[in-house]
Amino acid sequence: MTQLDVRVGTPLAEVETPALILDLDPFERNVAKMANYAKSVGVGLRPHAKTHRCPMIARKQIEHGAIGLCCQKVGEAEALVAAGVRDVLVSNEVLDIRKLRRLAQLAKIATISLCFDAPEQVEAASQAAQELDVVLGALVEIDMGMWRCGVAAGEAAAALAQRIAAAPGLRFLGLQAYEGKAQHLASYEERKLAIEHAAASVRLSISAIERTGLKCLVVGGGGTGTFRLEGESRLWTELQCGSYIFMDGEYAAIVGVDGKPYSEFEQSLFVLTTVMSATAPGRAVLDAGLKSYTLEKGLPGVLGRSDMRLVAASDEHGTLLLPPGTTLPLGTQLKLIPSHCDPTVNLHDVIVCVREGIVEALWPVAARGASL
Amino acid sequence: MTQLDVRVGTPLAEVETPALILDLDPFERNVAKMANYAKSVGVGLRPHAKTHRCPMIARKQIEHGAIGLCCQKVGEAEALVAAGVRDVLVSNEVLDIRKLRRLAQLAKIATISLCFDAPEQVEAASQAAQELDVVLGALVEIDMGMWRCGVAAGEAAAALAQRIAAAPGLRFLGLQAYEGKAQHLASYEERKLAIEHAAASVRLSISAIERTGLKCLVVGGGGTGTFRLEGESRLWTELQCGSYIFMDGEYAAIVGVDGKPYSEFEQSLFVLTTVMSATAPGRAVLDAGLKSYTLEKGLPGVLGRSDMRLVAASDEHGTLLLPPGTTLPLGTQLKLIPSHCDPTVNLHDVIVCVREGIVEALWPVAARGASL
Repeated sequence: MTQLDVRVGTPLAEVETPALILDLDPFERNVAKMANYAKSVGVGLRPHAKTHRCPMIARKQIEHGAIGLCCQKVGEAEALVAAGVRDVLVSNEVLDIRKLRRLAQLAKIATISLCFDAPEQVEAASQAAQELDVVLGALVEIDMGMWRCGVAAGEAAAALAQRIAAAPGLRFLGLQAYEGKAQHLASYEERKLAIEHAAASVRLSISAIERTGLKCLVVGGGGTGTFRLEGESRLWTELQCGSYIFMDGEYAAIVGVDGKPYSEFEQSLFVLTTVMSATAPGRAVLDAGLKSYTLEKGLPGVLGRSDMRLVAASDEHGTLLLPPGTTLPLGTQLKLIPSHCDPTVNLHDVIVCVREGIVEALWPVAARGASL
Repeated sequence: MTQLDVRVGTPLAEVETPALILDLDPFERNVAKMANYAKSVGVGLRPHAKTHRCPMIARKQIEHGAIGLCCQKVGEAEALVAAGVRDVLVSNEVLDIRKLRRLAQLAKIATISLCFDAPEQVEAASQAAQELDVVLGALVEIDMGMWRCGVAAGEAAAALAQRIAAAPGLRFLGLQAYEGKAQHLASYEERKLAIEHAAASVRLSISAIERTGLKCLVVGGGGTGTFRLEGESRLWTELQCGSYIFMDGEYAAIVGVDGKPYSEFEQSLFVLTTVMSATAPGRAVLDAGLKSYTLEKGLPGVLGRSDMRLVAASDEHGTLLLPPGTTLPLGTQLKLIPSHCDPTVNLHDVIVCVREGIVEALWPVAARGASL
């Protein structure tokens, strides 16, 4: 339920708050830069829709040459296909036969693939695909040390690949190899080392799989923090970067190859907020709290205001610490920089797209809440 | 956007996950207990709708004798009035004239009040009320040391009360005095001391206001951790407790007057999740992550399973640490105990209501996302 009453042409200063704002100029530069990079190194770009859950953004990514999208949940895949995306990878395991039937349904009109790390998932997906008379693409996810999903690299991956290859309705495509914990390692050297380790796991798995006579056509992975490493590895075939379109506060903590703050992409996503209470010098209270941005990666920053910082947030308030003795007028608008874009976007029904301070478009977050 | 396909009569074991589950028996006991308590001490109960954003729950609370609801945002008030609630307090300041006009519109069919801590808010609310020819009730919020909203207790409160009393379209009712930081103080003695301090601020403000000739008919405040203290103070006239209906992990950390874990109310809200990957002994991966529960108060607990704990969460995954060498079968359902109910509910479109393991009702979170 949203009450946002905003129209194309409205100046940003007149947008009611809290609101999720996308600055289109840097956003478009980000979309183009990653697309051009992928082209330049000859790998596919399959951006991650979990970042935006927004069909309009998916379509922009496709227009710039993305080979398809990836997502984490079947509900996200449904929203993407409904919006016209015709190649979707669920970069995650799916166990529930009902969810698998929904995916198989999508496979009637789009190319659909998903990941596996257990025989039970293979059996269920094969059943769903057969019931609906479709073929689902299949990647074996290998464990990259994230303490999450994935089989061990090497023989275990090969064994599961063979099981998939033997399962009616499934087509073995290759490997899912996302090194998630590498994305936010602070130094370039750490990230490089992590992706070298990941590459060793990929090679080990490809060798084991190819010894069985199967081919690894696809190796998926890569993220905003490491994409050049996977992109130039000659191993990964598809980059699954998500955050590059928005960037978030978390990436401010890492440094690039040159030792300077990571600046591959520009911050484009903000939570617009207004000072709604200011009863004591040195503080101001904002109308956006933890129902407008999430805190698991820390409090948001304040764009362009290094003299103040958010020090607390409750459901609907953020408390700003100001220089001692100073105040901010009631009604002052500020832009908060989310520390973690993906779950922040998921709190909002619409992205207010702005160019040079004027609302240019309103993009529904159509897959908001689509975690089923 | 939700894809939850569940019907009344479905066994809990067949509910697709992740899903937000309300166990109706403890929920109803919680609703009744707080209602009976308020009656027994002769104070009004005005439960906080920010906890649930759910009109069906608001109606249950009204059926049990609540005098009305409170909420933090105009959008929540709209959802409550649309559902038939006829007395709503926005326990927060509202500055934007557009939001105030929406509130004034509600005042045509319901009793609407809100809080103030600045003359600018008084002027804007008075303008909106006059434009729509309605009267808005007005509370002066006093600063309880939360580093949030509120004017200083005493003379500042009296000055603002006079300003409100002089403003056409506004009716001065009394004080908003919510001691939020006291709710989760661990010991009863700490909470008691905090509410004694709060009571001193309330008395100081009432004295100052009454010296101006105005009356304080209403003093609002109180929360799930301290409600008996405000309830028996003979100062507060309305209790604004929210979390008591659900309880959450945060309240597990406080102790009652008897020194034992706080047990006034029962846990009734859970996130139902399923083990969807388990590739190594000692760990299991759940299909619910930080788009299904929030982390700002810590990771959720696992109901009835003290042998395991959630140790990490990403967007759509939770990683469980199991006893060394053990595993959990794929497909195992678990109930997670949210550490913070309010923002967790706000991630879901529907509350799946269950009694004795069978789905009995589906209650829309109609005001989800209504932070405007």
